[in-house]
Amino acid sequence: MNFTPPWIADVRDTALTQRLQHLLDRKTKPLGSLGQLETLALNIGLVQQTERPQLSLPQLVVFAADHGLTARGVSAYPKDVTWQMVENFLSGGAAVSVIARQHGLALTVVDAGVDHEFAPRPNLLDRKVAHGTADASRQAAMSPEQCVRALEAGREVVRGLPGNVLLLGEMGIGNSASAALLLARLTGEPLSRCVGRGTGLDNAGLAHKVAVLAEVLQHHRDASTPLQVLAALGGLEIAMLTGAMLEAAAQRRVVLVDGFIAGAAALVASRLAPAVLGYFVLSHRSAETGHALLLQHLDGQPLLDLGLRLGEASGAALAWPLLRSAVLLLNEMASFDAAGVSEASSVTPS
Amino acid sequence: MNFTPPWIADVRDTALTQRLQHLLDRKTKPLGSLGQLETLALNIGLVQQTERPQLSLPQLVVFAADHGLTARGVSAYPKDVTWQMVENFLSGGAAVSVIARQHGLALTVVDAGVDHEFAPRPNLLDRKVAHGTADASRQAAMSPEQCVRALEAGREVVRGLPGNVLLLGEMGIGNSASAALLLARLTGEPLSRCVGRGTGLDNAGLAHKVAVLAEVLQHHRDASTPLQVLAALGGLEIAMLTGAMLEAAAQRRVVLVDGFIAGAAALVASRLAPAVLGYFVLSHRSAETGHALLLQHLDGQPLLDLGLRLGEASGAALAWPLLRSAVLLLNEMASFDAAGVSEASSVTPS
Repeated sequence: MNFTPPWIADVRDTALTQRLQHLLDRKTKPLGSLGQLETLALNIGLVQQTERPQLSLPQLVVFAADHGLTARGVSAYPKDVTWQMVENFLSGGAAVSVIARQHGLALTVVDAGVDHEFAPRPNLLDRKVAHGTADASRQAAMSPEQCVRALEAGREVVRGLPGNVLLLGEMGIGNSASAALLLARLTGEPLSRCVGRGTGLDNAGLAHKVAVLAEVLQHHRDASTPLQVLAALGGLEIAMLTGAMLEAAAQRRVVLVDGFIAGAAALVASRLAPAVLGYFVLSHRSAETGHALLLQHLDGQPLLDLGLRLGEASGAALAWPLLRSAVLLLNEMASFDAAGVSEASSVTPS
Repeated sequence: MNFTPPWIADVRDTALTQRLQHLLDRKTKPLGSLGQLETLALNIGLVQQTERPQLSLPQLVVFAADHGLTARGVSAYPKDVTWQMVENFLSGGAAVSVIARQHGLALTVVDAGVDHEFAPRPNLLDRKVAHGTADASRQAAMSPEQCVRALEAGREVVRGLPGNVLLLGEMGIGNSASAALLLARLTGEPLSRCVGRGTGLDNAGLAHKVAVLAEVLQHHRDASTPLQVLAALGGLEIAMLTGAMLEAAAQRRVVLVDGFIAGAAALVASRLAPAVLGYFVLSHRSAETGHALLLQHLDGQPLLDLGLRLGEASGAALAWPLLRSAVLLLNEMASFDAAGVSEASSVTPS
């Protein structure tokens, strides 16, 4: 497979970290009292290589595709819901549409491989690689060529979007199965810890899903490189997300990663180019089984933990105001000196 | 002590709960997949007694006061920081000023008892009951009259503010000591589980604080009713917050409770009028020791868990967009029928 990830700079910078930490520590607040927001401000400063980071023209992008594995009954919802939800995103009635509107986020939907012909619309990008993946229990979800085309299309989509921050999510009935497979194979974690109810399987449905996915892993037991694994286990939207994340990092954009499925793409990206991890902000801990585990492998602390399990970049959209807060606090809070506020005593009273 | 809390209606309403739950369940998303935001939308609907809640003119109010107990060295910061931070709130340089500006929240600072004479300013309400509380290790922090005046002033402040939602927080060097004392006495929890480092005591400072607070509890061992406990242990800003919360609930306003100290006021309010609990939204879990415990006694799940320990209503301000999201999702998301989206299958595939 012929895909070379773009070159991604390591965000680590000891001198800049010290300068940012000093700025944060001089703000009128007890040391460290803004908790994760301080880490976030520092990380965004490192991504942008500046003590005065700015978030401009945030782009929310939802990649959508269908999954051949749905033929095996791994989701509570019929496959048609993928294209129906794309229509819902575009007409403004989906959760992510509502939250994007609330925060003034530009929303783009990318057809990465939905089994449906959409009428052209503003905000809908046709990057259809196939009418869904193949049934991964019988063959590779994607051919090597399809996988590379999806990765490259993700890169190209990002190149076409303005701004310096991306909120990335997905839609695809069956894709929590692909994400669980990628997590299990790339990390070696037991499948049972990686597979969850997705959109709402009952106990019998979950047991069936685990059995099918075990079969898929066995079928593709020889897939070992990140690209082989991605092609074998799918899906098209996950591959396109992976390409988008790599390109975003190569351009030093902040990437706000949605939930379990976007997280699986982030994991693939990190196996292709480990430096990409420095560009991720993990938006939330999903209620989906496997997501807490996945977050550990992404080496990050999510911002929200609200029991969300929707996808669509809805968690990323909900976390967005916290990124703005972090940057505003760094740029706009007064220092002790400027505000004439006394500092903590270093002497313990008796 | 002569204080009668206002009458507060019980928000529980089985029929309305069912109608709200039905509306949420018909939205184009898997059942329950918006997690805590669904609970939040439902609770706001119950507070407002409607299936179409609206949040109007949110008011962020910071109550500030000084604490006589600071003479005993229970805080890492000097007492002057209380008035200095009030100036910082008003001039726009504090964390809460920045976040309020970000979200367009009206910010009012109430001088409940700061040991300082402020020049009059828009957005600063002079409700000074005293120049700080008395040293609670020697006498009651407030006289019965002062305590009632503070409670009534809190009610009056709310009556003078527009809108149907309040974000309530505080500033007062030494007030994490008062909050810990209130938590310990009102719940019977061991003091060691209630006391934390506040703005940043070291180990020796923390041990000293625990010893002083044990002495205070012993001195006021006979204080048992919520009002006696509040007067004995302080502080003026906590009493005023308590009054504000009771009045807000009596007027069916949503109350977004900030962190540990505002939470202590919420606890006092709930002991005076248990129905007030239905009006609270708990904004975040603070890093301060004792807050997780306090949240259990308030019977609620906080929205954020970001390791904040700043006060100022900063956590409430950060959580605010989530309240807006919850209400917008309830009001604006499409239903399955309206969007023509297929529903989950109830049949488990084989």
